[in-house]
Amino acid sequence: MTIRPDDMAAFKAVLDDKSWSTNADEIAPHLVEWRDRYQGRSSILLKPDNTEAVARIVRVANDRHVPLVVQGGNTGLVGGGVPDAGGGEVLLSLKRMTAVRDDVSGDGFSLGVEAGVTLQAVQETAKARDRLFPLSLASEGTATIGGAISTNAGGVHVLKYGTMRSLILGLEAVLPTGEIYHGLTRLHKDNTGYDLKSLLCGAEGTLGVVTAATLKLYPALHCHAVAFAGLKDVADALALLAHMQEACGDRLIAFELIPRFGLELVSCHMPRCRDPMETAYPWYVLMELASSNQAEDLDPVLEQALASAHEKGMVQDAVVAASEEQAEGLWRLRHSLSEAQKYAGGSIKHDLSLPQSRIPQFIQQVTEQLAHRVPGIRPCIFGHLGDGNLHANFTQPEGADKAAFLDRWADISRMVHDLTVEMGGSISAEHGIGRMKVGDLERYKDPAALAAMRRIKTALDPNNILNPGRILAMPGH
Amino acid sequence: MTIRPDDMAAFKAVLDDKSWSTNADEIAPHLVEWRDRYQGRSSILLKPDNTEAVARIVRVANDRHVPLVVQGGNTGLVGGGVPDAGGGEVLLSLKRMTAVRDDVSGDGFSLGVEAGVTLQAVQETAKARDRLFPLSLASEGTATIGGAISTNAGGVHVLKYGTMRSLILGLEAVLPTGEIYHGLTRLHKDNTGYDLKSLLCGAEGTLGVVTAATLKLYPALHCHAVAFAGLKDVADALALLAHMQEACGDRLIAFELIPRFGLELVSCHMPRCRDPMETAYPWYVLMELASSNQAEDLDPVLEQALASAHEKGMVQDAVVAASEEQAEGLWRLRHSLSEAQKYAGGSIKHDLSLPQSRIPQFIQQVTEQLAHRVPGIRPCIFGHLGDGNLHANFTQPEGADKAAFLDRWADISRMVHDLTVEMGGSISAEHGIGRMKVGDLERYKDPAALAAMRRIKTALDPNNILNPGRILAMPGH
Repeated sequence: MTIRPDDMAAFKAVLDDKSWSTNADEIAPHLVEWRDRYQGRSSILLKPDNTEAVARIVRVANDRHVPLVVQGGNTGLVGGGVPDAGGGEVLLSLKRMTAVRDDVSGDGFSLGVEAGVTLQAVQETAKARDRLFPLSLASEGTATIGGAISTNAGGVHVLKYGTMRSLILGLEAVLPTGEIYHGLTRLHKDNTGYDLKSLLCGAEGTLGVVTAATLKLYPALHCHAVAFAGLKDVADALALLAHMQEACGDRLIAFELIPRFGLELVSCHMPRCRDPMETAYPWYVLMELASSNQAEDLDPVLEQALASAHEKGMVQDAVVAASEEQAEGLWRLRHSLSEAQKYAGGSIKHDLSLPQSRIPQFIQQVTEQLAHRVPGIRPCIFGHLGDGNLHANFTQPEGADKAAFLDRWADISRMVHDLTVEMGGSISAEHGIGRMKVGDLERYKDPAALAAMRRIKTALDPNNILNPGRILAMPGH
Repeated sequence: MTIRPDDMAAFKAVLDDKSWSTNADEIAPHLVEWRDRYQGRSSILLKPDNTEAVARIVRVANDRHVPLVVQGGNTGLVGGGVPDAGGGEVLLSLKRMTAVRDDVSGDGFSLGVEAGVTLQAVQETAKARDRLFPLSLASEGTATIGGAISTNAGGVHVLKYGTMRSLILGLEAVLPTGEIYHGLTRLHKDNTGYDLKSLLCGAEGTLGVVTAATLKLYPALHCHAVAFAGLKDVADALALLAHMQEACGDRLIAFELIPRFGLELVSCHMPRCRDPMETAYPWYVLMELASSNQAEDLDPVLEQALASAHEKGMVQDAVVAASEEQAEGLWRLRHSLSEAQKYAGGSIKHDLSLPQSRIPQFIQQVTEQLAHRVPGIRPCIFGHLGDGNLHANFTQPEGADKAAFLDRWADISRMVHDLTVEMGGSISAEHGIGRMKVGDLERYKDPAALAAMRRIKTALDPNNILNPGRILAMPGH
């Protein structure tokens, strides 16, 4: 299957010459995800630079029943933003929509941007105004606002600021039938009908093409305090989290769980990473306080909270960073975890969330079940404990054959996902469904929710032209 | 039009005897809103006490195309929860669904409750566990969780905690076709498909009957500090808000704007209300800090922040409450505003939100325009400045005829709403659309949004049985 010449001509007819390309070299980087797991085909790339042009494209696609795949910075991990291998999907890139549509009369706590602006550019624009745009991801230099909205991106500051969904004040989008939804408000309270922006956020481009957004900004953070604590178990980590939230309120902006095995990996393999403690502990927490109040001294707040946690037995030992450099060193331990795992062979990875209180039991059970199935398997379970979000990674047994171990990915993931859902968790905390987890969603999602999602998809996109096959398989298409 | 006997029999056939009533005396209080603006008719009240029974009711209604009106505590203000005067709508009350469906293994930061539990009962349950459920409204003793969810209720603590939508972790609901959506998760992060809970929240019962929810709880607040500040204008109030947020972070939990005219009204007419300052100022702000940290002393934090605001010229004068009693006295000024207005004659009221930065200009223009149209009209514009939410009330000229003034409600509201929307605001910040503002929504809402809402309504409720005529008029029904 390829795109028909008359369809290609119809798209070209509504665009200027700069807004499309059939050059294979230009198209190529848009066809592959950076993890190389998905490689697609497409013979035309549409790259409009304004919302009206996006609307014309969508109308052509809808009239002619041509599937469109919407792409932002192409940093996804689940096959959502690259065309499939069939060659019949038209690529629609929003990367040229990079205007800052600011309201100069604004109070500085909101920012209007088009979909193709990168997260980093938004952060920098906010910073230049002494404000903070809190969404922060490893891929922020490339990931776009449109993509972050469509996937309801998370990152390291969700504990305080929430996911992308809670950072949007207003949205503009082209609906699958080509109408432009003008919803770029700056309102914090608005009860005039259905919450379309929350629906479009996280819909992975299947219900509309997000073209612009009004984002929430926050006061810039002017002081920080970072600590690393050794704990005897994960239950203590949860107790410590509640204790820190009570003691520090929203000044607690990060609370990351790290297992001993993870710390050993980074200490062994990664440069400038060393165990900050003399004694080994089974679990660690890296935490950070921050405040927008320049006059606030956070170190004593952190020290006092940790001292009382120690008295209560939640913390075995703790170090508070005495300098910016030490703070960076502690964060380096956390950020090096993924990389360090590579030195230990293959790892089978999961993007899970669980109700916080179930996490100790989940870790215990998943560890037992996997040890039974794959003797010697090494769990490296870490992540944003404050959000209940675990990177549940399982590293091959020492000396095992990497390829043979990775061949068991589907089998092991099934077991991990079954246990996750049994405990009230989610099989996709951050990355979404894309094409990768369409079958998993069918298996695990509540049937009434799936039915409602299908009805909404059909109602808004009757010809199934927007990101077809992502999130939902639509029978009959 | 009345409900057909065979339809009545069909509902009775799927319920036990306690779950329905045709007793007119029992039905009567469900037919009228507490402000008396809406008075409906219905000959049967359904009052199931479990989700399965709700599902059976909805299936009967859907099979037989009988309209259902869903009611919680019946504290709404826009005609959403009472039957219309036609007599053809069946009343479905959720008040008997009052179970706390708690997860005993929980971490104490979530609470599962059925739809008929009152807000106050949730607050008290949370308090008994040293937690806070922050949604707080004047009607909280009667308003139910189901109603608060369906209307995305706001209240006095939105500045810190957001509206109801941001306090829901999971939902259970019966969809209009009778399927039960089992979405009672406790997850903070979950990217598995469309955000149905945000869609159901604020849909005013038109897309599903909310039967239960998992709510977010927060650490209880253990210390408070309250201040009252006199300002020269509203622009200073906005600058002060940004200043306080930077200085105090999320410890700032309330920031209420009050005009001089409002303070005069309460000082004149209400018991135990007196102007706390020697000098009169055109505008006032009532603000509160609170913290969950028992050891924290907030008074110096508040005093220091106000001192530096005074230096910068944002604040003319301020008093900090020196006791719990003084704090209550300051809050009494705010809470007495609505009541005090009655002593000055009739008032035409609006539930608006605006982009914060537009508020000074809006107040100036609306005041000028109304003074031109109704010489002597007295604006009393107050509200949750931190949320951009204004109670834009306009009191009759002194000595004018009350009835003649109130007769101009539609005319004056049209002008106020036109200006609000022109400035990027919303005509319903908190109360929703119900039946009262269906025409306004048609007038002011983005056409693509309206079209999308209609498509979603038709897709999920093809027979238009759930709260028909609320939010949207559906042609052909």
